[in-house]
Amino acid sequence: MLPKSQIKLITSLSQKKYRNESKLFIAEGFKTVTELLDSHIQLHHLYITNPDYHYLNKNHTLISDKDLKKISALKTPNNILGVFKIPEHHDINIHGLVIALDAIRDPGNLGTIIRLCDWFGVAHLVCSENTVDCYNSKVVQATMGSLSRVKISYLDLEEFLTENKEGLTFGTFMDGANVYNETLPKSGIIVMGNEANGISEIISKLVNRRIAIPRFGALKATESLNVATATAIVLSEFRRFSTET
Amino acid sequence: MLPKSQIKLITSLSQKKYRNESKLFIAEGFKTVTELLDSHIQLHHLYITNPDYHYLNKNHTLISDKDLKKISALKTPNNILGVFKIPEHHDINIHGLVIALDAIRDPGNLGTIIRLCDWFGVAHLVCSENTVDCYNSKVVQATMGSLSRVKISYLDLEEFLTENKEGLTFGTFMDGANVYNETLPKSGIIVMGNEANGISEIISKLVNRRIAIPRFGALKATESLNVATATAIVLSEFRRFSTET
Repeated sequence: MLPKSQIKLITSLSQKKYRNESKLFIAEGFKTVTELLDSHIQLHHLYITNPDYHYLNKNHTLISDKDLKKISALKTPNNILGVFKIPEHHDINIHGLVIALDAIRDPGNLGTIIRLCDWFGVAHLVCSENTVDCYNSKVVQATMGSLSRVKISYLDLEEFLTENKEGLTFGTFMDGANVYNETLPKSGIIVMGNEANGISEIISKLVNRRIAIPRFGALKATESLNVATATAIVLSEFRRFSTET
Repeated sequence: MLPKSQIKLITSLSQKKYRNESKLFIAEGFKTVTELLDSHIQLHHLYITNPDYHYLNKNHTLISDKDLKKISALKTPNNILGVFKIPEHHDINIHGLVIALDAIRDPGNLGTIIRLCDWFGVAHLVCSENTVDCYNSKVVQATMGSLSRVKISYLDLEEFLTENKEGLTFGTFMDGANVYNETLPKSGIIVMGNEANGISEIISKLVNRRIAIPRFGALKATESLNVATATAIVLSEFRRFSTET
């Protein structure tokens, strides 16, 4: 049986406060855990209910399904739970494309955006301090392992954009230029805004290229695209140019 | 207080079986409910906890927060719940773009895809019979009202594609042609596959244009895009051509 102190430590990691204190986060499920094990992210400890998984890492404990249920954040725990170390902050390489998130609140959206950065080769994602924490277990699950391949920094977004104001900073706005008609560069910062309010006023002033995804159809009644799908479309537009000859 | 029989009827609508029997579904929250009220979808009855909403429709009942909690499918019910009639099946107009879903299981994904159809002017969405029901309350919430503007049919997808095999049927596959290099038509069927397994084998044989969204980045380790984000990128590619001169 797992000692109570370990159960307490692991369950405390559902809270950002304790993740920040201990510099640890949890990941669950075979795919997510093995992708993290194969990455630069360091394992703290692995908990498995299936002895067949012992080969994954010697630093493991075989536990009962009952114990896994106690430490898991999932409704239906999935054989394997890893406690990993939160990587140290990286320097932000603002060469190439950078996605900057202004107050994204939904863990599923952040997870999807991390996966999109990975797919489209965006090495660095910067998040405003009020964006949902990327080590939140719902975000970790939604990334499907991409978390290990995208460098994520939380910072003062206004300060970051002010420091980089000589470069191109893109943002989507209803009144922006049709993104399909723009020639898009290989480097720049793309700001994506909050689910309900879009890009905040302060950040809007630091965007020097306002773009829009055109809306089609006779009614044109849809108010907005979900921020993750909008990020997908915008990233696809930036990258399609690099495949042109 | 709401009679028990009404509470029972409304809560039964969380199950597809009872929705099909009664031809009713529920929608919650001001935005979703008002968009449905403004549409061709017919109201069965409206339940409000705020008397200010009485103007929305005379066919309403003012109920307590406690009663709303009993009938709501949401964790935090939101002042208004509408019971609506499931529209009759439409004829499928296969002129223009049609999205065809092969066994989409996640309600959030289906909701996002319905919203994307609305944004990109895709009037008709066809779903295989094993796709999650679009009147599932989680789907209804995720559509943000778009449900009223997209015609959705559940049918035998193999039969539907066989009947339309003279036309162009697109599907995304890892080994498909780079979508950025294709000239895409204004009409055709675009098949999107299941979250875990992609397009099924039977349906694959009925796809006559295999396309792929290229993957970028040095590692190219991301296994796949989420089906909703892939739909966003593919629809954006089809539509960007219609804006070209």
